[in-house]
Amino acid sequence: MTQEEARVLVCNQAFYDAFARRDLAAMDRLWASDAAVTCFHPGWDLLIGRDAVMASWRAILRDEGPPIEASRERAFVAGDAAFVVCLEGLRGGEPSLAATNIFTREHGEWRLVHHHAGHLAQPAARPRMPGAN
Amino acid sequence: MTQEEARVLVCNQAFYDAFARRDLAAMDRLWASDAAVTCFHPGWDLLIGRDAVMASWRAILRDEGPPIEASRERAFVAGDAAFVVCLEGLRGGEPSLAATNIFTREHGEWRLVHHHAGHLAQPAARPRMPGAN
Repeated sequence: MTQEEARVLVCNQAFYDAFARRDLAAMDRLWASDAAVTCFHPGWDLLIGRDAVMASWRAILRDEGPPIEASRERAFVAGDAAFVVCLEGLRGGEPSLAATNIFTREHGEWRLVHHHAGHLAQPAARPRMPGAN
Repeated sequence: MTQEEARVLVCNQAFYDAFARRDLAAMDRLWASDAAVTCFHPGWDLLIGRDAVMASWRAILRDEGPPIEASRERAFVAGDAAFVVCLEGLRGGEPSLAATNIFTREHGEWRLVHHHAGHLAQPAARPRMPGAN
């Protein structure tokens, strides 16, 4: 793993920490302020723009359910852009969501520009590959 | 829209065209050959590496179901990286999947490094935002 991949993973973990602590201020700081931001929460329509994305986090972080944690994180860096793929699940449980988090370097720091989380479930429109779980 | 965003959208459309035509050779050319590639098909586990990703497309493109098409595409470019968010649905139907496609510039051409498609459905682990559909 390169140093920059490790830095992106630190930022990705900070995102899940803010999520688990329901820390809206920390969540706000983790998202880009200059670049355009977008978000696909599981089952939601696409959210476009910082106002819509942060409003979604205000609604989500009010929820009192068990915290979500990431696992099997992998980071990929290309210049001033990076992305992390990982699984998400309720703490202590099996992963139930697949996540793609995209980052950009803004003022020297990695910041989120896109979060996409979707259910790990039986696909409807595409066949499963033999042996896939 | 910038010229580069338009170029990324052309590449994104080429991906859905190859998907609809079940054209494995075209699909193969659209994916990066130098950069690491990953893929989350809806409900599948994470696929890592070109061999696993192309094996998944071989399996998917054998299917004889109606073609999938993209809608509401938006492109975001940051240097030599870019991503497109869009919706996917069976041709003529309502969108049923949310997609995030990440590209990198390789030998002067935009190439896919990650595809993530997940169902637009009722979320289980997170609350819905009031008014979200």
